[in-house]
Amino acid sequence: MSLLVTGSIGIDTVKTPFGVSKDCLGGSAVYFSMAASFFTNVRFLGAIGADCPFDLKKIFKNRPVDLTGLEVRQNSKTFRWAGSYHGPMNEAITDFVELNVLAEKPPKMPDEYKDSKFVFLANTTPILQIKLLDQLDNPKFVAADTMNCWIKNHTRDLKRLLKRIDCLILNEGEARMLANEHNLINAAEKILLLGPNVVVIKKGESGSIIRQADGQLFVLPAYPATIVKDPTGAGDSFAGGFMGYLAGQNKADFATLKKAAAYGTVVASFTISDFSLKGMTKITKRNIDNRLNVLRKLTKF
Amino acid sequence: MSLLVTGSIGIDTVKTPFGVSKDCLGGSAVYFSMAASFFTNVRFLGAIGADCPFDLKKIFKNRPVDLTGLEVRQNSKTFRWAGSYHGPMNEAITDFVELNVLAEKPPKMPDEYKDSKFVFLANTTPILQIKLLDQLDNPKFVAADTMNCWIKNHTRDLKRLLKRIDCLILNEGEARMLANEHNLINAAEKILLLGPNVVVIKKGESGSIIRQADGQLFVLPAYPATIVKDPTGAGDSFAGGFMGYLAGQNKADFATLKKAAAYGTVVASFTISDFSLKGMTKITKRNIDNRLNVLRKLTKF
Repeated sequence: MSLLVTGSIGIDTVKTPFGVSKDCLGGSAVYFSMAASFFTNVRFLGAIGADCPFDLKKIFKNRPVDLTGLEVRQNSKTFRWAGSYHGPMNEAITDFVELNVLAEKPPKMPDEYKDSKFVFLANTTPILQIKLLDQLDNPKFVAADTMNCWIKNHTRDLKRLLKRIDCLILNEGEARMLANEHNLINAAEKILLLGPNVVVIKKGESGSIIRQADGQLFVLPAYPATIVKDPTGAGDSFAGGFMGYLAGQNKADFATLKKAAAYGTVVASFTISDFSLKGMTKITKRNIDNRLNVLRKLTKF
Repeated sequence: MSLLVTGSIGIDTVKTPFGVSKDCLGGSAVYFSMAASFFTNVRFLGAIGADCPFDLKKIFKNRPVDLTGLEVRQNSKTFRWAGSYHGPMNEAITDFVELNVLAEKPPKMPDEYKDSKFVFLANTTPILQIKLLDQLDNPKFVAADTMNCWIKNHTRDLKRLLKRIDCLILNEGEARMLANEHNLINAAEKILLLGPNVVVIKKGESGSIIRQADGQLFVLPAYPATIVKDPTGAGDSFAGGFMGYLAGQNKADFATLKKAAAYGTVVASFTISDFSLKGMTKITKRNIDNRLNVLRKLTKF
C-alpha cells in the first residue's frame, strides 16, 4: 500500500565530535522516505528552491519513491539548517535556520496522491498539516509528528489536528510538554484523550513506547547502537521504518504496530552510524532484518 | 542458596511531591533484603546504633532473613539520611547525611555467614567492600554497587575491588563516569576490562543493560510504572530482586541473569509505588510473578 509523506528537504550542515558534514542532504521527508523505501512504495511531497544542489531522482534511483510531488520553485531557496552535537550528542544545538521555501505555501498535492491510505505528516505548523490532510480523499492511517514550538504556541491548531489523525509520533520531551505530565505512560494516556488512537513516544537511546486507546501498551528498548556519528534524522528514520512497515503490511493492528516500532529503531540505528543518508544508503533490507532478529534476541527473557 | 548482603540500615526522611515520610526505615541492606526475601534466604550484615527506633526482627518476621549479622552498638548512632525529590523525581537531592555508625569499623562477619555463595556488597567505600570480601571462604558470585564519589576519589581501591568481583551493578551516570565513555554499551565493555565478568547498568525508568565478558548483551525496559510516590530504594530493590533470583536458582548463567534483571525491575516498580518499604511489604510473590508476565508481554514483538 502506498505511503504518502509530506515534509522538508534540507541543505544541512552538521557538526559532531566525529566530523563536519557541510551542505549535505537532509530534511524530514528525505530521511523518512529513505527509511520507508525499504518496506513500501513512497509518495514524496515537498518543495525545494532552484538553488538545491541535490538530484533527488538520482538519490532515490532504484528505490520505490515517487517524486511526482517534488516541487522545484525557480524563485525560491531551499530550506537550510545547521546544527551541532556536543558530548553525549543527545540533542542538536541549532546554529542557524533559513526556512526559505518552508515559509511559503505548501507544495501542491498531485491528483494521483489523493487516494493515499497511509500518510505521514512530518513536523511543520499544525495548520499546514491540517491543510495537507484536507486534500486527501479517505486515508486509512494518518500519523503526524510535532514539536515544542507548536505545542507551546499553536496549541489550538494542534488540538484540531489531533482530532483528525490516528497516530501521534513525538519525542519524550514533547510528550511531557503536551500532556503536562512527567510519567510517560500517563502522558500518553492524556494525549490519547485529545484524539489519536495511538501515541508513539520516542525516547532516543532509551527506546520507545506505544500506547493505544484500548489500553494496550508496548515498551521497546532502542537497538543498542555502538557507532553513533550523527544523530540527525534518527527520529524521521524511526517514523519512516515504522510507517513503511505498516503501509507494506497494509494494516495497523497492535501486533503490526509493535513490529513496526522495532523496524523503526533498527533503521534509525543505521542512520546514526554515519553522516546524512550514508548510514541508510549503504545497507539492504537484509541488514535491517538481521538487526531486527538481533534486537528480538537481545530483549527476550 | 543463601545470599549475603552487607550494607546500610538508615533512618530516612524523604520528601516527594506526594508527601513526606519522616524518620522512616531505609538503607541499602534493608531494601535489598526485603526485595531478595521473595526469592531466597538472606543473610543480613549491618550495624545500627542504640537510637534505632525500628525492630528489624518484627519488620522481617515471616521472611527468610537471618539477622544474626545485625550489630546493635550501644554507644553509636544509626545512619541518617534526608532527601527530597522534585518534579520528575529522577534524582534525590540530599538534604543531610549523618554517617554515624557507617563511619565506624564494619560489622563483624558471623562465622556461619562465611560460606555464603552469593554475595552483594552494597555501596560503601571500596576498601570496606574488599575487607568484607576477605572474610568469606569461597563465594561463587559476588556483586557490588558503587557510586560517583568512590569512582572519583577512590579509583585505585575501586579497581582493586573490580578484579575480585563477578558483577558490578551501577547506574548509567556512574557507568559513564567510571568508563569515561558516554555510549553505555561501550562503557560496559570498558568496565569489563577492569575485571568483572558481568556489568549491570541501571537506567531508572529507561530500564537496564547487562553485558557479559563473552559478548552477550541484554537490554530490558523498566516495568512501566504509573504510580511513583518515592523512588528511594529503587536501585537496591532492583539489586535485591536480581541477586535474590540468582541465589534462589543457584546459578548465574546468562539466561538466569536476564530473568533476574526482569525480576529486579518488577520488584523496584513495587518499591517506588509507596514510601519506605510499604510498596514491598503489601505484596506477595504472586504479585511479582504477575508483573513479570506483564513485562514479558509488553516487550514481545
